[in-house]
Amino acid sequence: MTDLKPSSEKLPTRSENYSEWYNQVILRTEMADYAPVRGCMVVRPYGWALWENIQQALDKQFKATGHVNAAFPLLIPMSFLEKEKEHVEGFSPELAVVTIGGGEKLEEPLVVRPTSETIIGYMYSKWVRSYRDLPILINQWGNVVRWEMRTRLFLRTLEFYWQEGHTAHATAQEAEEETKRMLDIYTRFAIDEAAVPVIPGVKSDTEKFAGAVRSYTIEAMMGNTWALQSGTSHFLGQNFAKAFDIQFLDEKNQQQYAWTTSWGLSTRFVGAIIMTHGDDQGLVLPPRLAPIQVVVVPIYRSDAEKDRVMPVVERLRSELGEFRIKIDDRSELTPGYKFNDWEMRGVPLRLEIGPKDVEKGVVTAARRDQPGRAGKTALSMDQLPAQVGQLLADIQSSLYEKAKAFRDAHIFDPKDYHELTEVVQNGWAFSWWCGSRDCENKIKEDTKATTRCIPLDQPGGTGPCIVCGQPAERKVYFSRAY
Amino acid sequence: MTDLKPSSEKLPTRSENYSEWYNQVILRTEMADYAPVRGCMVVRPYGWALWENIQQALDKQFKATGHVNAAFPLLIPMSFLEKEKEHVEGFSPELAVVTIGGGEKLEEPLVVRPTSETIIGYMYSKWVRSYRDLPILINQWGNVVRWEMRTRLFLRTLEFYWQEGHTAHATAQEAEEETKRMLDIYTRFAIDEAAVPVIPGVKSDTEKFAGAVRSYTIEAMMGNTWALQSGTSHFLGQNFAKAFDIQFLDEKNQQQYAWTTSWGLSTRFVGAIIMTHGDDQGLVLPPRLAPIQVVVVPIYRSDAEKDRVMPVVERLRSELGEFRIKIDDRSELTPGYKFNDWEMRGVPLRLEIGPKDVEKGVVTAARRDQPGRAGKTALSMDQLPAQVGQLLADIQSSLYEKAKAFRDAHIFDPKDYHELTEVVQNGWAFSWWCGSRDCENKIKEDTKATTRCIPLDQPGGTGPCIVCGQPAERKVYFSRAY
Repeated sequence: MTDLKPSSEKLPTRSENYSEWYNQVILRTEMADYAPVRGCMVVRPYGWALWENIQQALDKQFKATGHVNAAFPLLIPMSFLEKEKEHVEGFSPELAVVTIGGGEKLEEPLVVRPTSETIIGYMYSKWVRSYRDLPILINQWGNVVRWEMRTRLFLRTLEFYWQEGHTAHATAQEAEEETKRMLDIYTRFAIDEAAVPVIPGVKSDTEKFAGAVRSYTIEAMMGNTWALQSGTSHFLGQNFAKAFDIQFLDEKNQQQYAWTTSWGLSTRFVGAIIMTHGDDQGLVLPPRLAPIQVVVVPIYRSDAEKDRVMPVVERLRSELGEFRIKIDDRSELTPGYKFNDWEMRGVPLRLEIGPKDVEKGVVTAARRDQPGRAGKTALSMDQLPAQVGQLLADIQSSLYEKAKAFRDAHIFDPKDYHELTEVVQNGWAFSWWCGSRDCENKIKEDTKATTRCIPLDQPGGTGPCIVCGQPAERKVYFSRAY
Repeated sequence: MTDLKPSSEKLPTRSENYSEWYNQVILRTEMADYAPVRGCMVVRPYGWALWENIQQALDKQFKATGHVNAAFPLLIPMSFLEKEKEHVEGFSPELAVVTIGGGEKLEEPLVVRPTSETIIGYMYSKWVRSYRDLPILINQWGNVVRWEMRTRLFLRTLEFYWQEGHTAHATAQEAEEETKRMLDIYTRFAIDEAAVPVIPGVKSDTEKFAGAVRSYTIEAMMGNTWALQSGTSHFLGQNFAKAFDIQFLDEKNQQQYAWTTSWGLSTRFVGAIIMTHGDDQGLVLPPRLAPIQVVVVPIYRSDAEKDRVMPVVERLRSELGEFRIKIDDRSELTPGYKFNDWEMRGVPLRLEIGPKDVEKGVVTAARRDQPGRAGKTALSMDQLPAQVGQLLADIQSSLYEKAKAFRDAHIFDPKDYHELTEVVQNGWAFSWWCGSRDCENKIKEDTKATTRCIPLDQPGGTGPCIVCGQPAERKVYFSRAY
C-alpha cells in the first residue's frame, strides 16, 4: 500500500471531457474508488490522508475559537425531523431509513442522519437551563447519508464525511457573529491552506439550508468555470430552538428561546482542490495539505551508481524530516516512469538525485506547478530544508494566484440579459438582482445557472436587475454549479 | 460549555451499587448522556476529548508500523454478510437494516455496518492482483452499529466508535505476525498510556470473533473484579479471502488466496479507564490521556486578594502551556466546591493558589490519586513545569501499580472446582483447562463466569482440567465479564 500503483495510460484531457478527466484522476491516483453500493465511495488512503490534513487544519481553528468536539448518534427518530417544517421538507426525499433492528420491525423508523440539527437540538434542550449554560459551542466530525440520485466522487455521494458545528447562544447577535466567524474560518482555510480562492456570501432564499433563517457560503470556481459550494454556515434563528424547546432563564429570570447556528465543510472540499488546481497531467496538490509534499527519486544505472546515490537519499530523508516526504526506491520502475507517476499524483515538489548531483553536491528540484524545464532548479545540499521550505511556500502562493487569475478572468459583468445567458456558458455573471424568485428561476430555466451567492463584498449603490430591470440593491453571482 | 456544571449530590459508592456508581459518574461528569434512541449514547465533549487522546496515541503507533487510514462505506449489501458462514451467524441477530432509501423500498436491504470485514474484503479483491500489492495495511476510524439488547454507556451501546484495522498478506506467517503486532500495540497502549494492566491472550473457540481462525484479546479487571475485553486482534486465515476472492499471483506466478487480519479497539476502552481507576469520589484519569491534566483553582476572599492572586494564575497558564491545563476562574463558586467538582471529574493534578502562596512564592499541588493531606505538596514557583511533569509521571505510574496490585490480589488459583465456583464470585480463577466446550459451558452455567483468555504467558507443563480432571496443557482465566 505504501507503493502506489503506476499509471500506464494517459488521462483524458480536461478540454476533451472534464467530467471524465475528474473521475479518472481520482481513480488512477487512488484517491477514491466506487463502492459496491450505488452512489457510495471508498476514500482510499491517499484521499483520506488529504482529508486528514484538512481536518487538522480546521480542527485547530475550531478549538482556537473555543469549540469542543463531541459525538451524537447516527440514528435519529423519524419524528424528530418532522418537528421543523422546512427542515423535513428539504430532507425527507433524501433519507435512508432503518426499519429493522435486531431482526424485528421497529415501532418508529430511524433515519440515518442526513445532518444533526434535530438530535442535537433535542440534547441541547436537556442541557440548557440558564444563561450560564450558554453558549454551547460543539463540533462533530462524522459521516452523514443523503439519498442523492446523481452522484459523483467526493462532490455528491450518498454517504459523505464532514464536520458539523452546532452552537446555541443567548442572543441573536451572538449567534449571527458565530455564523460569520465560522464562515470566516472557512474562507481563511480555503485561501491559506488549500490555495482555493473563494467568495464568501449569502445564499438566496431558494438556495438556503432547509430550516435556516440565513445561509452563508463560500463559493469556488472549478477548472471548467462551474461553481462549487465549498462550505456553509447557517444562522438558524430560533427555528430549531422552538422546535426542540431549547429554553433558558436569562439574567433577568425570564424564559427565552436560544438562538442556534450550524456550519459544515465536507469531503466535497477534496473535489474543490482537485478541480481548482488539477491539470491535464493529473492532480496538483497545495503543499500545505498535500499528503506527500516532497518525493525523492534516486537515479542510477548500475549498482555502483546506486551505492553512491542511495546513502545521500537516506541522508535527505532525515534532513528533510520536517516535511511529509516519500522516497521512491521502487527498483522495478524507471525514473521517467516515476516522474510521470508522481506528477499525476500531484506531489508539489520532486527531488531527483543522480550520481552527477552527488558529485556536485546538489539535488535537482522539479516543481509540479511549473512542468518541464522552467520548474527545475539545482539546489545545493547546504541549507536544503530552508530551500525546500521556500519552494513549497512559493508553490503554495503561485497556486493561489493562478487559481485567482483564472477565476477573475471568468467573472463577467454582462450588459444585458442576453449577454448573461452567454457568459454563464463559460464563466460567472456578476449582476444586479432584484431578489425575486421569479428572476432567479428564469435564469435557471434559460441557462441552468443559479444564484451562487450575494457576496459580502458589495460595490454599493443600486442598479437595474439583470432580468426584470427593477432597481436592485445587491449584485449576485450567477453560474452553473455542481 | 467550557464551564462544566457543578455536582450537588454525592455519588453512590462502588460497594453500595457498582453499576449505579458507574452510570452516575459518567452522567455527572458529563462524559456521556443517554440518547433518545434506545441503547445509543451521546459522547459529550469531556468524554470525547478522552477518546481523542486515545485515538491520537493509537494512531501514532499504527502509522509508525506502516498502516494508513481510509474510509469504507457505512452501508453494506445484506448479501455480503452472507458470504462468510460463521460471520453472518454471529452478526445477523444484531443488524440494523436500511430498507428504504429516497422514499423507495430498496431492492436489496442494506446493513448498517456492524464491522467491515465483508465490504473491505470486497474492495481488496478489486485492488489486489500480484504479490507486489501486498501487504495492504489499512485502518479506519469510524462508527458501527450492533443491535444489542442490554446496553450500558460506553461498554455496550447500539452505536459505538472504534478503529478497525484490516490487513491482507501473502503468507499465513506474515498475517499471524501482524495479528500479534497489533495485540502488542494494544497491550503497550493500555499499560503505558491508560495505566490499565491487561493480560494478552487467545480467546477460546466459543468466545472468538465470528469468522476468525483465532482471536487474540487484552483482558482487564474492573473495580468490581469483572473482566472487560478491551481490544481484540483476529487472525482470519483465508476465510474472508475465499469468501471475497482476494487472490494474487505470487512470485512463482501461481494464484494464491491472501491471508487477512482485523483488529479493533473501541469507546468501550473509556469504560475500562473509568472502572479501572475510578473511586467513590468519581473519575480518576491517567495523566497521559486526561483531557485536563492540571486544573488551577485561585483562592481569594476579597477583591484585593483577587488582584494579587490572578496575575500569578495567568502567569501559570503560559508557564505550564505544555500541559493540558484549565484555569477555574468561575466567580460564583467556592474553592471547596471546585475541589470536589474537579475531583469527581478525575483531573490528575490540582494547583491551588491563594494570597499566602503568592507571598511565599509557592503553589499547593493536590494529587487526585492520593486524596486528602497525603497528596498535597507545596511546589516552589521555580522550575514549576519540571515539578508538575514529575508529579504527573508519578501519578501515571502509581495508578498502574495500584490497578495491578488490585488485579493480582483478585486472581486465584483454586484447588478444585468447588473453590473455583467461589473465587469467581469476587475475582478471576487462573486454572488448567482441557479446552473442551463442555467444561467451559459447565462453568458458565454454574457461575456465569466465562473463559476470558488463554494468556500468552503460560507456566509451562501440564495439569488436570479444573472441571473434568483430564490432562490440560494450558491455563486459562475464568471470570464474570461485561
